[in-house]
Amino acid sequence: MAASKLRIVALGGLGEIGRNMLVFEYDGRLLIVDAGLMIPENDMLGVDLVIPDLSYVLERAEQVVGVVVTHGHEDHTGALPYLLERVHAPVYATRLTRGLIEVKLREAKITDADLHTIDPQDVVLLEPFCVEFYRVSHSIPDGVGLAISTPVGLVVHSGDFKFDHSPVDGRPTDFARLAELGARGVLLLLSDSTNAESRGYTPSEQALGETLARSFAQAQGRVIVATFASNISRLQQVMDIAARMGRRVAVVGRSMVTNVRLARELGYLNVGEDTLLSVEQLDQLPDREAVLICTGSQGEPTSALVRMGQGTFRAVGVRPGDTVIVSASPIPGNEEMVNRTLDNLCRLGADVYYDEVLDVHVSGHASQEEQKMLINILRPRFFVPIHGEYRHLVLHAKSARQCGIPAERVFVLETGDVLEIDGSGGEVVDRAGGDYVYVDGLGVGDVRDAVIDDRRHLSQNGIILAVVAVDKYTNGLVGQPQIVTRGFIDEGEANGLLDRARDEVARAVAEGGTRSEMQARIDSSLRRFARQETGRHPMVVPVVTRV
Amino acid sequence: MAASKLRIVALGGLGEIGRNMLVFEYDGRLLIVDAGLMIPENDMLGVDLVIPDLSYVLERAEQVVGVVVTHGHEDHTGALPYLLERVHAPVYATRLTRGLIEVKLREAKITDADLHTIDPQDVVLLEPFCVEFYRVSHSIPDGVGLAISTPVGLVVHSGDFKFDHSPVDGRPTDFARLAELGARGVLLLLSDSTNAESRGYTPSEQALGETLARSFAQAQGRVIVATFASNISRLQQVMDIAARMGRRVAVVGRSMVTNVRLARELGYLNVGEDTLLSVEQLDQLPDREAVLICTGSQGEPTSALVRMGQGTFRAVGVRPGDTVIVSASPIPGNEEMVNRTLDNLCRLGADVYYDEVLDVHVSGHASQEEQKMLINILRPRFFVPIHGEYRHLVLHAKSARQCGIPAERVFVLETGDVLEIDGSGGEVVDRAGGDYVYVDGLGVGDVRDAVIDDRRHLSQNGIILAVVAVDKYTNGLVGQPQIVTRGFIDEGEANGLLDRARDEVARAVAEGGTRSEMQARIDSSLRRFARQETGRHPMVVPVVTRV
Repeated sequence: MAASKLRIVALGGLGEIGRNMLVFEYDGRLLIVDAGLMIPENDMLGVDLVIPDLSYVLERAEQVVGVVVTHGHEDHTGALPYLLERVHAPVYATRLTRGLIEVKLREAKITDADLHTIDPQDVVLLEPFCVEFYRVSHSIPDGVGLAISTPVGLVVHSGDFKFDHSPVDGRPTDFARLAELGARGVLLLLSDSTNAESRGYTPSEQALGETLARSFAQAQGRVIVATFASNISRLQQVMDIAARMGRRVAVVGRSMVTNVRLARELGYLNVGEDTLLSVEQLDQLPDREAVLICTGSQGEPTSALVRMGQGTFRAVGVRPGDTVIVSASPIPGNEEMVNRTLDNLCRLGADVYYDEVLDVHVSGHASQEEQKMLINILRPRFFVPIHGEYRHLVLHAKSARQCGIPAERVFVLETGDVLEIDGSGGEVVDRAGGDYVYVDGLGVGDVRDAVIDDRRHLSQNGIILAVVAVDKYTNGLVGQPQIVTRGFIDEGEANGLLDRARDEVARAVAEGGTRSEMQARIDSSLRRFARQETGRHPMVVPVVTRV
Repeated sequence: MAASKLRIVALGGLGEIGRNMLVFEYDGRLLIVDAGLMIPENDMLGVDLVIPDLSYVLERAEQVVGVVVTHGHEDHTGALPYLLERVHAPVYATRLTRGLIEVKLREAKITDADLHTIDPQDVVLLEPFCVEFYRVSHSIPDGVGLAISTPVGLVVHSGDFKFDHSPVDGRPTDFARLAELGARGVLLLLSDSTNAESRGYTPSEQALGETLARSFAQAQGRVIVATFASNISRLQQVMDIAARMGRRVAVVGRSMVTNVRLARELGYLNVGEDTLLSVEQLDQLPDREAVLICTGSQGEPTSALVRMGQGTFRAVGVRPGDTVIVSASPIPGNEEMVNRTLDNLCRLGADVYYDEVLDVHVSGHASQEEQKMLINILRPRFFVPIHGEYRHLVLHAKSARQCGIPAERVFVLETGDVLEIDGSGGEVVDRAGGDYVYVDGLGVGDVRDAVIDDRRHLSQNGIILAVVAVDKYTNGLVGQPQIVTRGFIDEGEANGLLDRARDEVARAVAEGGTRSEMQARIDSSLRRFARQETGRHPMVVPVVTRV
């Protein structure tokens, strides 16, 4: 590696949504920005969460000069426990972000992390890097973008952002700071591509307030609002409206309760003691005075809203007269779960409002015109779209070219790419990791694609086990073959199918041969049998024991 | 059952999308409208398709006076082979719909169906019912709505419809006929709720033409259009634009080829011989003169577009310079598959246009204002929303109340409900079926929820098999227990885990007891072991053989 170049290692979030993580490396020293998790896609069967492949960093653990976290969302913080378990470098974050990280580290029993609270005015020297910050608006308070001075020039990392001119927390994205950075000359901008498909501008968080207030005013009974636990500004709006209309609020769902407590402690959520009640206290009030805020806006199976829909949430039973507002839009892959919950709530007689039928959600990410605005303010020499699936990165790159950045200075990278860059140009020189690392139960990385492939096979056609004992001297069958199936066929419907399968196995054994020859023969004859009889392709596991 | 009442049995499509099927019954005689299939939801693991529970009809097969099919989409015709295999009643459909049904019956080797072609002017007497038809616009030509005279009054069934005032086939929904029906007095309207979430009006199919034409004009290379094979009007538009711009067209994908051939034969698709080429012929032309129309707009795993994205479609390799237009919107549940294909096509360097970024799709279903317009034209005494998930039915019912139908005359039913109605009122009197009937391979109904539950369990955590031989006289272990896992852990990563599992099993066997006691003990000890060591909950199958 050329010592005079800046190396950028994309460990996550490029060509995918989630597990955002970048490494900036110069002269063997590494600065890490964010370390997030990804919610598994629907076909990553049984996986709890996905984190970046950390091996590039772990092999250079001593060389890490610092970790900077842009904001407190899971897709930027969720892999920190796995990182900080093995890399002992200082971590820098704003106050709320730090608070959320602390909760996460406590759950993972990591007690020795070296956390530092930063203020957007701070300058943090992590040689050879110098990191400055600027406020951004996003769907969680206290987010920052980064201006990183490096030996090859100034690099700006947008974090996740939108340009909200009237944010609920009164802290808009800092234009003056951006203009000043632009004036200093920006070598490279890395910018949030999440909403690159969205034309125009993203509405202000406040635009939502009026719609919510109208829904509250019309509600004859209780109002139940489901949203993201981290969207403190949304919670603030709901609580403000509730207070204004003489309603009291209870918060339900573990992550919601944790976040509300933390945000109040740190001063990011302002709500009077007399507004917040427990669910039990709320139950004593007339329905017209009650508001519930809960988790479950993405149809998460164990969340409060989903269980309310199923009628299995003990604390709150939804009933006719309730108004339910789902203030979020479903993340791709979650639609079926969300829709099922909406249907269940309708069945219980609630009036249900959601993004499709009423504007009860706005995004926290910049749309196309805002993305271009950032590019135009900073006028970077080079551009790398980050935080998005591949098509989002391609669309954002197109916007950059429309803003006048020549195509050869726009790099569409994917997770795992290593870009080297200096004042004169950049190129992808290597690959570093990029594999999915699956967390499943207690295991990190011990479930690989082969295991997932087996799960997929099992999920589609089930399994047939054939257990056979043969005499170790005569090679003859001892007793009857045993056939066990799971997920293959309803055994009550099988109509002698399993008896015939047993005969197939007995025939395969009768041909003799070694144990592995017998197993191969049982395997192929049962596969053929299943295909012919049922048109299905179950996994077949033959077990031959010599006794 | 009161002989003087009309009985409506909802066999599918109410509270769900797909497998649309209604039975109208009077005095023991049954008229069936549509018999569709449903694409399995993501958690119906391994299921190929879902059909209605036909038992209500099969138990009364001799009493069926006829089957009327409103249009040729799979969700209205896909269960016909299963129905007509066992019910020998006359089937009535328009010409294109009949052609599509014939293809389907031929594939299912059903040769004795009694098919009748109807024209919208026809009147079909199926005592005690008399069925008239009216043209509707939809995303397939030749669709009809039904006006069914019954002894209790006139019933209108909307089919699937929109009000397209400038449809591509020049045949708008027949307002005059609707007005005339309204004047006769409508007892009951059953109407399409699919787009009940959509505010305003659905745009005309022709609105799309301009956007498509602009994309074609800008394209420097080949244009590849993916859409539904049944959307003949969309195919007509693409072929017209291609011809106008001096491009030639090849059609790829089995269902697309079948539908284009059929639609041309029957005169529903007008395209000159010189416009249509084979893929091989198209390959000889300059890229600027080539258009491909293909399947895969829903990310179907084996479709042409998906395989093009994966680079595994031999006939067509996507390359930089190609323009790909996905002219459809993803059906809920398909988003991940569609997005993955869009990303892959971007990776290959194509310019990719899809619903999110350009208006390259319009729906074939009525939006809220059109739904209300139909209600206002017909002024029915009673209203039943059909064709939609539960929330859609609820929203459509709300629109009906807004149009002045009193709440007690609006019935929100679900699949399986039996409604009895006459001039004075209606009520749900019974349940008839309503269960999902899963088709998996050759089996119809032999996979039930217990099998699906097993598949789900297997898909999340895999399976551990423990095979043990014990001496039938001493009850002692013969040889070593065998442990086999699938989908549980990467065996290379297992680090002696399986050896320890084997020890657990040996200990469980050593405690003796009957065979089933031993199996129960192995089961619980392996479950506990897996939970403690991995945090996972695999299915455990112990097999104890006495030798």
